[in-house]
Amino acid sequence: MPADSPSPMTAYATPADAEAAFYAAFEAGDAPAMMAVWAEDDGIQCVHPGGPLLSGRAAIGRSWSAILAEAANIRIRVEPRQQTQDAGLAVRLVYEHIQVGRKPSAAPVVATNIYRDTGRGWRMIAHHASPCPPIERGSNTPLH
Amino acid sequence: MPADSPSPMTAYATPADAEAAFYAAFEAGDAPAMMAVWAEDDGIQCVHPGGPLLSGRAAIGRSWSAILAEAANIRIRVEPRQQTQDAGLAVRLVYEHIQVGRKPSAAPVVATNIYRDTGRGWRMIAHHASPCPPIERGSNTPLH
Repeated sequence: MPADSPSPMTAYATPADAEAAFYAAFEAGDAPAMMAVWAEDDGIQCVHPGGPLLSGRAAIGRSWSAILAEAANIRIRVEPRQQTQDAGLAVRLVYEHIQVGRKPSAAPVVATNIYRDTGRGWRMIAHHASPCPPIERGSNTPLH
Repeated sequence: MPADSPSPMTAYATPADAEAAFYAAFEAGDAPAMMAVWAEDDGIQCVHPGGPLLSGRAAIGRSWSAILAEAANIRIRVEPRQQTQDAGLAVRLVYEHIQVGRKPSAAPVVATNIYRDTGRGWRMIAHHASPCPPIERGSNTPLH
């Protein structure tokens, strides 16, 4: 098997490795590679921007297949915002700057990505993404 | 100090205790009690539904003060959806069914709540909330 061909046997040594594989699969539109990053566990949870909470590999896999089938020429710049890691859990908050074709993103998506050490590498167990309005720096205006 | 008066010295023995205090403060409109649940750490992160990513105690405290000042007669039913815990980190995904006055919520908010064992009790380090459309059960319609 070529070294660049992801498979369900891929073992990610760190949460950062799993996250890199997640966004590489997203950009490549590669649903099997994407689902290889997620834990083999029906407790996994996913919220797409504006979407409902999806639970389990079947629902999450269907959603990514639909999204990636429509997502040609996507470029994603991942801007790390915060990360916290313990022996077995890791949380990474990022901005996703998504460019479709030549159109740059108007505003980022903010994503909370959660990874678990499965004993056979780190895997994603939750992805919560939501549209992020531009931050008005210096503004004291209440948000709601 | 009365036993029911939260203070920054409150120590939450479990992530569930911290979460209960978070939603009790939310319902009570008590910003100091709310901020007592958050870690004393400028790495804390918060996304309100439809809002930007807020970082640090100052910005997050201002946002909750503004929200809670406007939130009279709020009732929140918290529906646990998934929880994962390690020695020092805990992740809890919940639906927030928010009722304002006598008007029931049309759809829940989905929240990813993250807690850390600070050595002096569990505290919230991240809250990512987004509006959740009703789930169309049995539907295979793509989400995007």
